[in-house]
Amino acid sequence: MQPAESAGGAPLPGFGDVLAAARRLQGITRVTPLLEHERLNDRVGGRLLIKAEPLQHTGSFKFRGAYHALAARRPKTVVAFSSGNHAQGVARAASLLGVSAVIVMPADAPAIKRAATEAWGAEVVLYDRDHEVREEIGARLAAERGATLIRPYDDPFVVAGQGTVGLEIVGQSLAMGIEPDAALFPCGGGGLVSGGALALTHCFPGIAVHSVEPEGFDDTARSLRAGARCSNPPGGESFCDALLAPTPGELTFALNRRLLAGGLAVSDAEVAEAMRAAFETLKIVIEPGGAVALAAALAGRIDCRERVTVVVLSGGNVDPARFAAVLQGRLP
Amino acid sequence: MQPAESAGGAPLPGFGDVLAAARRLQGITRVTPLLEHERLNDRVGGRLLIKAEPLQHTGSFKFRGAYHALAARRPKTVVAFSSGNHAQGVARAASLLGVSAVIVMPADAPAIKRAATEAWGAEVVLYDRDHEVREEIGARLAAERGATLIRPYDDPFVVAGQGTVGLEIVGQSLAMGIEPDAALFPCGGGGLVSGGALALTHCFPGIAVHSVEPEGFDDTARSLRAGARCSNPPGGESFCDALLAPTPGELTFALNRRLLAGGLAVSDAEVAEAMRAAFETLKIVIEPGGAVALAAALAGRIDCRERVTVVVLSGGNVDPARFAAVLQGRLP
Repeated sequence: MQPAESAGGAPLPGFGDVLAAARRLQGITRVTPLLEHERLNDRVGGRLLIKAEPLQHTGSFKFRGAYHALAARRPKTVVAFSSGNHAQGVARAASLLGVSAVIVMPADAPAIKRAATEAWGAEVVLYDRDHEVREEIGARLAAERGATLIRPYDDPFVVAGQGTVGLEIVGQSLAMGIEPDAALFPCGGGGLVSGGALALTHCFPGIAVHSVEPEGFDDTARSLRAGARCSNPPGGESFCDALLAPTPGELTFALNRRLLAGGLAVSDAEVAEAMRAAFETLKIVIEPGGAVALAAALAGRIDCRERVTVVVLSGGNVDPARFAAVLQGRLP
Repeated sequence: MQPAESAGGAPLPGFGDVLAAARRLQGITRVTPLLEHERLNDRVGGRLLIKAEPLQHTGSFKFRGAYHALAARRPKTVVAFSSGNHAQGVARAASLLGVSAVIVMPADAPAIKRAATEAWGAEVVLYDRDHEVREEIGARLAAERGATLIRPYDDPFVVAGQGTVGLEIVGQSLAMGIEPDAALFPCGGGGLVSGGALALTHCFPGIAVHSVEPEGFDDTARSLRAGARCSNPPGGESFCDALLAPTPGELTFALNRRLLAGGLAVSDAEVAEAMRAAFETLKIVIEPGGAVALAAALAGRIDCRERVTVVVLSGGNVDPARFAAVLQGRLP
């Protein structure tokens, strides 16, 4: 079979690339648990199987794709731009592989994300989210330092690495004797959901995979409906700092338009409620952007009644003050 | 080999009883992950392998022993007294096994624990911790209702069930190629540490197992030094609500005096710091009592340098307002 092509002509990653990523990541990434809780099931009237990627190394799924891309390319120096989770993933992968890392982060990124990135030994370069374009800064730094740029989602190795989340979900749900009906993934640029969908739709041909985004940043949902990449309107606000990418990735959208059943959006209030529910039932810390899929299920943005729905929690890197405010109902 | 006897003459549970519990609990309890984080390792100058029992069903290890004891005895009605985690464990086990449950809880137990106990369908009877004796209320209710009392720790089935935490730690550390040097367990009445020590000392004869208690409630530590059961002095205060048992159990102390290397104590401030560290690195919610072993390691109450120390996080049932206060540094 010929590999499918993206709009730009590059071959798209396929299921075999996700398997290759799994071989490379074995013993490096953590197999995170697939959890279930009666009280959450009761709320939706069905079963939720909850993949807990906050327990991944660096506190988010991003370590999977970052390590895979770095191990495949083996540069001397890597440059990455990221609001924080890809930054940590690249920084830790670089430190494990003996690669120097320069990370371009927005000046308003959560302090916990910046501190963790620096703790892995990376050099952090800050930029102004409103007046500078991170892609340009990343490209300039890469040229200046002779470094390789690892994009946060529009990279076939990154997508394949994130897809290992989906492979684990397949094995874990089969071990429970279950073929899930649907799966919900948090979506920024679309790397996680596209990789996850490669794995899930291959093994479970009938599964309906959905992206979930914050309201005002639902570019992937609108692009799926339009059949072409749309950008977010200016002026949107959300506390889901991990999911503010302005436009679907070229590569990721080429996959997602083929693989996804649709895109959902949730409000910040629904996200905060999902964070509190995970605290009370699962005892897992989720950051706002990591909680959108659970929010979609709990808020009824998709019908989960009498079905099995996989819900991916994608990360847990949230400042203590912000988490406390959510627990106290002061945010959003 | 003859089984060892407790002071009261009853045979003590042994390693074979823990294996029997594992057979009964297979597919019922969750195999919780054994986690490790570079930043925590760096802080202690050694390796910490962290067993995450907040991810157990009902949010604490107590479900293990409760289910095992109920499944072994199969009463029509069960009575239990508990500050909250044993309550939830018994309530959920009873609901799974079709047993009616009456739970005696202190009126000042955390709201999250009482609500969860009721959500599992149990009848909750409150008592005044300062003026009533829960053992007496439990015995009276058991007599009135013809019910079987399941004690929170002084029960051989409960101890054997909690010991399955230790069996999992053995398998998980061996899979990492490691024989740990020491293990730290939170300790109230001593059920978890005695059961865990049965498993760990059998498979790892050189391991040094320690109980960890809140300052002012270190009855097990002092009893181990004295060679006889001592009670806590009156008037102590700690926010570790799960660990306020006044005296070591008779059965559990008979085991612990044989199996433990010693007992440690930590301050509430050290516990709060451990809760914050777990939030930032592991993304796991720990309740105060569940964090004492991690607190002992991070506060240097035991030397973890250049060794491998198992740290058990025993539960995560903490009210949101309290957890928020800890994150904000307003507690203790």
